[in-house]
Amino acid sequence: MASSPKLNVVVAGASGETGSSIIKALLANQAQFHVIALARPESAGKDVYKAMASSGATIKTADFRAVDALAEQLAGADVVISCLMPIQLVESETLIDAAHRAGVGRFLPSFWGPVMPPRGVMAVREIREDLLDRCKRLYLPYTVVDVGMWYQVCLPAPYAPPPPVADVFIGDGNAPSAIIDKDDIGPYVARIITDSRTLNRSVFAYGEVTTQSTILAEVEAATGKKVPWDSVSAAELEARVAEHQSLAAKDPNDVGLLLNLAEDQYRYSRSVRLDNTPEHAQYLGYLDGKALYPDLECKSVREFVREVVSGERDHRIYVGRDPVADATQHRT
Amino acid sequence: MASSPKLNVVVAGASGETGSSIIKALLANQAQFHVIALARPESAGKDVYKAMASSGATIKTADFRAVDALAEQLAGADVVISCLMPIQLVESETLIDAAHRAGVGRFLPSFWGPVMPPRGVMAVREIREDLLDRCKRLYLPYTVVDVGMWYQVCLPAPYAPPPPVADVFIGDGNAPSAIIDKDDIGPYVARIITDSRTLNRSVFAYGEVTTQSTILAEVEAATGKKVPWDSVSAAELEARVAEHQSLAAKDPNDVGLLLNLAEDQYRYSRSVRLDNTPEHAQYLGYLDGKALYPDLECKSVREFVREVVSGERDHRIYVGRDPVADATQHRT
Repeated sequence: MASSPKLNVVVAGASGETGSSIIKALLANQAQFHVIALARPESAGKDVYKAMASSGATIKTADFRAVDALAEQLAGADVVISCLMPIQLVESETLIDAAHRAGVGRFLPSFWGPVMPPRGVMAVREIREDLLDRCKRLYLPYTVVDVGMWYQVCLPAPYAPPPPVADVFIGDGNAPSAIIDKDDIGPYVARIITDSRTLNRSVFAYGEVTTQSTILAEVEAATGKKVPWDSVSAAELEARVAEHQSLAAKDPNDVGLLLNLAEDQYRYSRSVRLDNTPEHAQYLGYLDGKALYPDLECKSVREFVREVVSGERDHRIYVGRDPVADATQHRT
Repeated sequence: MASSPKLNVVVAGASGETGSSIIKALLANQAQFHVIALARPESAGKDVYKAMASSGATIKTADFRAVDALAEQLAGADVVISCLMPIQLVESETLIDAAHRAGVGRFLPSFWGPVMPPRGVMAVREIREDLLDRCKRLYLPYTVVDVGMWYQVCLPAPYAPPPPVADVFIGDGNAPSAIIDKDDIGPYVARIITDSRTLNRSVFAYGEVTTQSTILAEVEAATGKKVPWDSVSAAELEARVAEHQSLAAKDPNDVGLLLNLAEDQYRYSRSVRLDNTPEHAQYLGYLDGKALYPDLECKSVREFVREVVSGERDHRIYVGRDPVADATQHRT
C-alpha cells in the first residue's frame, strides 16, 4: 500500500460494533480512503470480513501477538484505528508497538466511550489510559476519540439490549449525558483522521446531550403509551458498585461479574458524577466534535426513537449474542 | 482574605527552592497579589517565614493532614500553588481535597520539573501524575507548570550542587534539553496564574534549550581553562538505572538509593530519551511558555555562567544541606 494518493487506513477489531460503523463510513468514501481491515487468521474467512472485502476493503490477516510481523502488515499505513476490546490487552499493546515500529502517521487507541477522568472512576478506563500512556512513551502520533453512550443502549425495554448492558433509569433521570447513534461514529472518524487539529489530542464526538427523562418521553410519545423502566436510586447504585467491587476483589476472574461492575460504574459516572458532558470533556482537555464539525449532522434522539419504534431499523446491538461470552472469547 | 481586589495566592512549600522563587516574584507585585504562605506550626517561626512576612506576605499555619481545617485556611483563595515534595504524599492529597472543598479558582499541583511522558519513565513523575488525576476526579481547576532542569544543577564542578544532584556529562553531550534559571520560575508563574489560556492546561515554562556541550563551552570560555566533567555513556547510564531499580526493589525504604535512582532516571529521560524538549512537550499537550509570553525575558545560560564564574552570585542550591536528609525529614 505504498504509493497511493489515498489515505491508507487500517482498522483492527473491524467486525465489532464500533469497528463496523467506522469501516462503513470509510468504505463510503473510497476516493479518499484505502480501507484495510486486520483479521486474525481464524476469523478472516468469516462472513463479516467477506462482506467488507466485497465492498472494497482489503482484508489482511494479522498475528496480534507478534510485533515484527504486525509491523510489516502496517507498513505504509497513514492511520491505524484500534477497536480492540480492553480485555485484549496483549493484542492492544502489540498493535501500539507495531504501529510505532512501522512509523504510522496517526494511531487511534481504543477509547470510543463516555468521557470521564482518567483514573479512579472505573477500571476499564484505566486500561485504556495505560494504553494511551504506552503511545506517549513512544511519541506515537495519536488521536483519542470518545463518543459518549450509544443511543442503542439507552432505550428502555423492549428496545434495550440484553442485560447487563440494558440501561436502568437512575434517580430523577435528569442527569445530562452525551449520546450518539452508533452509526454516526464512522462519519465522525472520517473527519477526525483527516484533520490536523486533532493530532495528539482527544476529541469528544457525540450526537446530542440529553437526559433519561427526555429519552423516556420520546419513547412514550412515539409509542403513545406509558413505558415502564426499571429504576434505581443514586444511593442504591453506589451500594451496588461497592458490592460488585468487593465481590470482584475476591474473584477477579469472574468475567460476568466484572461486566456487571463495569456497567454500574458507567451508570454511576454519567448519572451521578455527571462525567459524560461536553463541559467536563472540555475540562479534561477534549476538543468538542460539534465545534470542530458544525456541518456534520448526527441523528437526533427523536428521529432514532421514531425509527426504532416504527420498526424501520433493527437498532439493537448484541442481537443473538451474549456479551459475557463475547468478552470471554477474546481471552483465548 | 475575602473582598480584596487583589488575587489571593496561597503557596504551600514556600520555603523550598521553587517556592521561594515564586514567593519572591509574587511579593514583587503586591499591587496584583495578596501573598499567603502556608507553614506547618513547627516551621512558622523559622527565619525564612519571618523574612517573607516582613516583605509583605501573610503567614498562615496549616495542618496538612486535616482537610476541614486546611479548607478553612484556603477560604477565599483564588490560586493555590503546591511546591510540596512528592514524598509529602498525604499532605499533597490533603491540600488538593481542601482546595476543592474551599472552591479555589485554580490549583497548581507540584510539578516544576522536566517534561516527560506521564507514566513508565520514572516513579517520581507517576506520583505527580497521580496527584493531577486526583484533581481531575474532583474537576478542580488546575494548571500544571513544568520548567525543565534548573541552570543551578546543570554546571560542572566546582559550580555544581552536592551529589547525587550534581550533574554528569552524558554521551556526546549534544542532547537538547530545556533549562531555566530557578529565579525565573517565579516571574513565569506570576504570568501563568493571571492567564485564562492556561486554565486546565499544562505549561512548559523554560529559559532556553541547550546542550551539555554548550554549557561546558560557556564555562570554559568564562573561566579561560579546560573544565573536567565526569562523564558516563548512555549504555552505562542505562545499566546504572537498571541496577538501582533492582536494588530499590529489594529495599524500597532506602531514601538515598531512591534519590540516586531518580537522578539517573532524570538524566536518562533528558539525555537519552530526549523527553525534555519543547517539541515533545507540544506532543504531550503542553502550551509553550515562549509562545505565551514572548516578552518575558529569561536569563541566558551565558549570562548565568558569567555571573557564577565571576562570583557575582551564589547560584548553588542545597548549600549546607543534605538532600537525602531533606527528603527524609518530610517523612516524619
